[in-house]
Amino acid sequence: MEIIEVGPRDGLQNEKRVLSTETKTDFVRRAIGAGVRRLEVAAFARPDRVPQMADAEAVLESVPRSGGVRYIALVLNARGLDRALALTHRPHEINYVVVATDEFSRRNQGVPTMESLAGFRAVAARARAEGFGVTLTVAAAFGCPFSGEVTPDRVREVVAAAGDDLDELCLADTIGVGVPRQVTALAAAVREVSSAPLRAHFHNTRNTGYANAIAAATAGFQALDASLGGIGGCPFAPAATGNIATEDLAYLLNRSGDPTGVDVTAAAAVGTWIGEQLGLPVVPAQLGRAGDFPA
Amino acid sequence: MEIIEVGPRDGLQNEKRVLSTETKTDFVRRAIGAGVRRLEVAAFARPDRVPQMADAEAVLESVPRSGGVRYIALVLNARGLDRALALTHRPHEINYVVVATDEFSRRNQGVPTMESLAGFRAVAARARAEGFGVTLTVAAAFGCPFSGEVTPDRVREVVAAAGDDLDELCLADTIGVGVPRQVTALAAAVREVSSAPLRAHFHNTRNTGYANAIAAATAGFQALDASLGGIGGCPFAPAATGNIATEDLAYLLNRSGDPTGVDVTAAAAVGTWIGEQLGLPVVPAQLGRAGDFPA
Repeated sequence: MEIIEVGPRDGLQNEKRVLSTETKTDFVRRAIGAGVRRLEVAAFARPDRVPQMADAEAVLESVPRSGGVRYIALVLNARGLDRALALTHRPHEINYVVVATDEFSRRNQGVPTMESLAGFRAVAARARAEGFGVTLTVAAAFGCPFSGEVTPDRVREVVAAAGDDLDELCLADTIGVGVPRQVTALAAAVREVSSAPLRAHFHNTRNTGYANAIAAATAGFQALDASLGGIGGCPFAPAATGNIATEDLAYLLNRSGDPTGVDVTAAAAVGTWIGEQLGLPVVPAQLGRAGDFPA
Repeated sequence: MEIIEVGPRDGLQNEKRVLSTETKTDFVRRAIGAGVRRLEVAAFARPDRVPQMADAEAVLESVPRSGGVRYIALVLNARGLDRALALTHRPHEINYVVVATDEFSRRNQGVPTMESLAGFRAVAARARAEGFGVTLTVAAAFGCPFSGEVTPDRVREVVAAAGDDLDELCLADTIGVGVPRQVTALAAAVREVSSAPLRAHFHNTRNTGYANAIAAATAGFQALDASLGGIGGCPFAPAATGNIATEDLAYLLNRSGDPTGVDVTAAAAVGTWIGEQLGLPVVPAQLGRAGDFPA
């Protein structure tokens, strides 16, 4: 299983304290030192809406480029792709988000899902022509904060309308409500209409994230998003986690006979370090406190 | 799946603040109100070693007796059974613990594992003759803090020596190191030598507890221990969890099509309440913060 470190993007984006470009670059360097080889490090969002991502260009220009490490930038629209193209050091991949439900899509992106997919198809074709890897993320695939349950049929319909310009399909449990049997059902549903490699994005909001990760490994997903320290929770609710934690996921998978290439002890140290940078009294990841086993 | 509420025993036992008998009884009453029907409410341990359990008799005499609710008391030796027998209102069941590794068994109970099993056989025969249900818990079945890895062969050997005077076999991940494939392997190993219904006891120390719970459901375990609020972590490490949380486990299983009879929202309220009684700034359970889904 490949762990994609999304702490520098989804993790930081949901934390209150805004870090300097230097600290973010240091975070990326430390993550690579712990064994991560694919990282989502920036989002091309509006700086007034997502202040933590205002230095997206500066981060991408300054992160180390070597050793087969691949960088991903989140792109929400054509303007985001323009920003990626304008860089001296471009990301290797873009991750484009559409939301599974019309209600959430309208609130988040101003248009219903199918309109948002038209935007994806246009950006994806251009991105691939420019040599970027392209991931489509289907957000709220496991449940929506506004319209409730999301069915596998709906997610299949969304994926079927995505076209062929994609290298990876990511199913995201954006609000952390999913359970393992949904992972299995969603994988089966999207495979009816797409042969793209599957990636999943879990939040541990209701303590189901790691069980979902095991289900994803069993269902043939090839990559899982995670953040060092498990950062990304709401800053006002201590230990209310965001993403599943890289170090805890690596412990779970490494000991399950599914090696991730991530060194658990090294990753736990980075998790503790990023918690300190963010002023968190405690990070959601457990490995930094509990230690690896056997010691 | 049956959830056994162990907050009043294993949960409280590992918390710093000692609660009054009245508060413990209130805790039990609230747990029953949330839908739990089987609870471990006391341990017959030495009061100087486990101050939180010093009022074991008083708790058992005062908890409500009705509606098919069954109470369990932890018993460590013949003296513990004597204490259970001396009560006006006895527990329905006893849970006797042996430790899978000699090193941990010697430190915890003064004798190696096989000697401890001789003690179990004697107490179990007497307990069953007196009408108690008898559970044997094999502690450190997933790993030992002193001798490291514990093999399924070792656990099978322990269970094979336990005799036939037991109604249930509980495999405990005492230090929270286990992963799902161990759950599957241990179930297969002990089934070679015992046909007793299986129960599991998971700690979420390294964020593997809920994934292990799903593996246990798949492997045919019939009962899972959990504590409301997920209380029972080390009091000096905030949010370093002890047991998996009743409300979060109920969310996971109820939504997985494996109804537990526990009302998630009611259980989450009790989890928050017991955290307040213990002076915890935050409980490890997530449902009290995140809320049920769909809302």
